[in-house]
Amino acid sequence: MEKSRTEAFTDAVIAIVMTILVLEFPHVHGSTFADLVVLKDIFPAYVISFIFLVIYWSNHHHIFQMVEKVSGQTLWWNNAFIFLITLLPFTTNWLGDNIWAHDPEILYAALFLLANLTWLFMIKNLVKVNAHNACVTKILGDYRKSYRTLLLNALALVAAFFIPIGGLIINVLSFLLWIVPDKRIEKIKNK
Amino acid sequence: MEKSRTEAFTDAVIAIVMTILVLEFPHVHGSTFADLVVLKDIFPAYVISFIFLVIYWSNHHHIFQMVEKVSGQTLWWNNAFIFLITLLPFTTNWLGDNIWAHDPEILYAALFLLANLTWLFMIKNLVKVNAHNACVTKILGDYRKSYRTLLLNALALVAAFFIPIGGLIINVLSFLLWIVPDKRIEKIKNK
Amino acid sequence: MEKSRTEAFTDAVIAIVMTILVLEFPHVHGSTFADLVVLKDIFPAYVISFIFLVIYWSNHHHIFQMVEKVSGQTLWWNNAFIFLITLLPFTTNWLGDNIWAHDPEILYAALFLLANLTWLFMIKNLVKVNAHNACVTKILGDYRKSYRTLLLNALALVAAFFIPIGGLIINVLSFLLWIVPDKRIEKIKNK
Amino acid sequence: MEKSRTEAFTDAVIAIVMTILVLEFPHVHGSTFADLVVLKDIFPAYVISFIFLVIYWSNHHHIFQMVEKVSGQTLWWNNAFIFLITLLPFTTNWLGDNIWAHDPEILYAALFLLANLTWLFMIKNLVKVNAHNACVTKILGDYRKSYRTLLLNALALVAAFFIPIGGLIINVLSFLLWIVPDKRIEKIKNK
Repeated sequence: MEKSRTEAFTDAVIAIVMTILVLEFPHVHGSTFADLVVLKDIFPAYVISFIFLVIYWSNHHHIFQMVEKVSGQTLWWNNAFIFLITLLPFTTNWLGDNIWAHDPEILYAALFLLANLTWLFMIKNLVKVNAHNACVTKILGDYRKSYRTLLLNALALVAAFFIPIGGLIINVLSFLLWIVPDKRIEKIKNK
Repeated sequence: MEKSRTEAFTDAVIAIVMTILVLEFPHVHGSTFADLVVLKDIFPAYVISFIFLVIYWSNHHHIFQMVEKVSGQTLWWNNAFIFLITLLPFTTNWLGDNIWAHDPEILYAALFLLANLTWLFMIKNLVKVNAHNACVTKILGDYRKSYRTLLLNALALVAAFFIPIGGLIINVLSFLLWIVPDKRIEKIKNK
Repeated sequence: MEKSRTEAFTDAVIAIVMTILVLEFPHVHGSTFADLVVLKDIFPAYVISFIFLVIYWSNHHHIFQMVEKVSGQTLWWNNAFIFLITLLPFTTNWLGDNIWAHDPEILYAALFLLANLTWLFMIKNLVKVNAHNACVTKILGDYRKSYRTLLLNALALVAAFFIPIGGLIINVLSFLLWIVPDKRIEKIKNK
Repeated sequence: MEKSRTEAFTDAVIAIVMTILVLEFPHVHGSTFADLVVLKDIFPAYVISFIFLVIYWSNHHHIFQMVEKVSGQTLWWNNAFIFLITLLPFTTNWLGDNIWAHDPEILYAALFLLANLTWLFMIKNLVKVNAHNACVTKILGDYRKSYRTLLLNALALVAAFFIPIGGLIINVLSFLLWIVPDKRIEKIKNK
C-alpha cells in the first residue's frame, strides 16, 4: 500500500513536471519558422530534462516493483528526490536562457548529481530494509551503474566550470547507461 | 502492472495537457463579449487540440485493454508519444496566434503526423509482442484505419504549404475516422 | 474498468483545474493587507468555482458508484463535461476581472447551465444503459433535482442580463440543492 | 472506495501544488549565480511550503490507512483542507516577495493555523465515525500532538504581528513535531 501510493505520487509529480516544462517556453512573436529561433537553446534543454524524467520514471517503477518493504526513511529520500525534481522546470529554464554560460550549466549539473545521490541513498535504504530478499540484494545491491553515473555527473559538474556545454554533453552521455535500464531485473522477472 | 502504470501515466499527462491548454489563452482586456475577439483564433485551435487528446485518451485505453503484454520497446514508443503530446500546448498556442499563416499550420500538421506515426509503431510493437493472441492480431493488426489517418495527416501537411487553413481542415476531417473508435473492440468484448 | 478509468480521469482534470484556478490571481504589488484589494473580486469568483468543482467531484463519484455499465455515449457526455470544466479557469478569471459587468456574468452563468445540461444528458444515458437495475432507475432516474438546478441556472442566466451580480447569487443558491448530494444514495448503500 | 478515492484526490492536489509552487519563481535576468539573488526570499518560502505539503501528504495517508469509515462530513473537512492547500502557491509567493513584512507573514501563519484546525476537525470526525475501533480511538483520539501544533501555530501568528520572521521560524519549529509522524501508528501496524 505504502509502496503503491509512493509510486503513484512520484509518477504524478514526474508527469506534472514533464508537462509544465513547456509552459516555460518564451512567447514566439511572429509566424515563421525563423521566429522559432528564440527556442533554439530552450528546446534542447527541454528534451534533455524530458529524457532525464523518463529514465527516472522507468527506473523508479522497476525498483519499487522488486522490493517488498519500504521504510519511513525510504519515503524521506523519495521526498528529497521529488523536491529536486520540482526544481527542474526552473533550472531547465535558466539553462535554456543561458546555455553557453558557466553558472546555469553548473547548477543544472549539480541538480543531476544531487538527484542521483538521493536516488542512490534511497536504493541503499531499500536494500537494507529488504535484506532478506536475495534478489534485491543481488540486483539492487549492485551499485556499479549508480557509481558510474555519479562519476559522470561529478565529471560533468567539473567540466561545466571550464567548458560550460561540456557539462551538458557528459550528462547526456550518462543517459546511455540508463536507456536500457532493467535488463537484469527483467531477466529475474521472467524466470 | 507495467500496463496499468503506463496507462495511468499517459492519462495523467493527457489530463494535464488538456487543462493547461487554456492557460495559454491571452488575457482579455475589457468586459464585453466584443473583447473576447482576441480568442477567435486560439479558441478553435484549443477545441481541435482537445478533441485530438480525447481521441487519443479513448483509444489508448482500448488498445491497452486488449493486450496482455507490453515490452520495453512499447514503453519507449509511448514515451515518444507523450513527448509529442507535451509539445501540444506550445504548438496550439503558436497556431492560435497565427491561424492563417503557413509555418504554424505546418508545425501543427507535422505534430499530428508524428504523433500518429509514433502511435502506429507502438501498436505494431504490441501486435508483435502479443502475437499469440488471435484477437490482438486480428483487430490491432488491422492497420487500415491508421494508414488512412496517416494519409490524411500527410495530405494536411502538404496542404498547409499551399493553403494554411486547409491543413487544419483536413486534420479535423481525420477525426471522423476516430470518433467512433472501438466498434471492433467492443464487439469482441461483448462476445 | 472503463468506469474506474473515467472516474480517475475526471478526478484528475477536476484536481488540476482546482489547483490552477489560483494561478490566475493577479500579482500583488505591495506588502500590506490593503494591497490585497486587487483580489477582492477574483477571490469570491474563485471560491464559487471551487465549490462548483467540489460538488461535481462528489456527485460524479456517487453516480459512477451506483451504475454498473457505462456506454460509449456516456463517455462522450463526460468528455463534453470535462471540456466545459477546462474552460472554468478562463471564465472565472474574466468574471474576477469584471464581477459587476454583464457579459462575464452571462458567460459564467452559461457555463453552469451548459455543464449541468451535459451532466443531465450523461445521467439520462446511464439510466438507459443500466435500465435493468431498479436502484439506478429509481434514484438516478429521478431528475427532479437536476431540473430544479437547471431552472435556477436558466434564471441566473436571464438575471445576468439585467442585474449582473444577480446571476452569480442565484447560482450560489443552486449550490444549496447539492451540498448534501447523496442522502438517497447513501440510504440505499446502507441497506 | 470512498476512502481510497479521497486519498487519491488529496494526493493529486498536493502533487500539483508542490509542482506549481516553482512556477511562481520570478524570471531570472542574467546568467550568473549573483543573478539568482532574486530568489533569496522566495526559495526558503518555497522549501517551507514544500515540507509543509510533504508532512500533510505523509500523515493524510497514515490516518486514512487506519480508519475504516469516512463520513460525508469527513469529506467536507477534507475539501476545506484542500481549499486551503490550493491557496498555498499564492500565499507562498506573496511571502517570498515580502519575507520581512508583517502582513504576508501573518497571512502565511494564518493559513497554517486554519489548515491545522481543519485537519483536527477532520480527525475528530473520523474518531467519532470509527468509535467502534479501539485502535483509532486510542491513536487518532490522542489529540495532544495536534493541540501542541495549533499552540505553536497560534504563537506564530501572534509573533508575526511583532517580529514578522518570528512567525515563520516558530512554524518551521512546529515541523519537528511531525517529521517523524507515525511512530505510534507503525507500532500498531507491526503488532
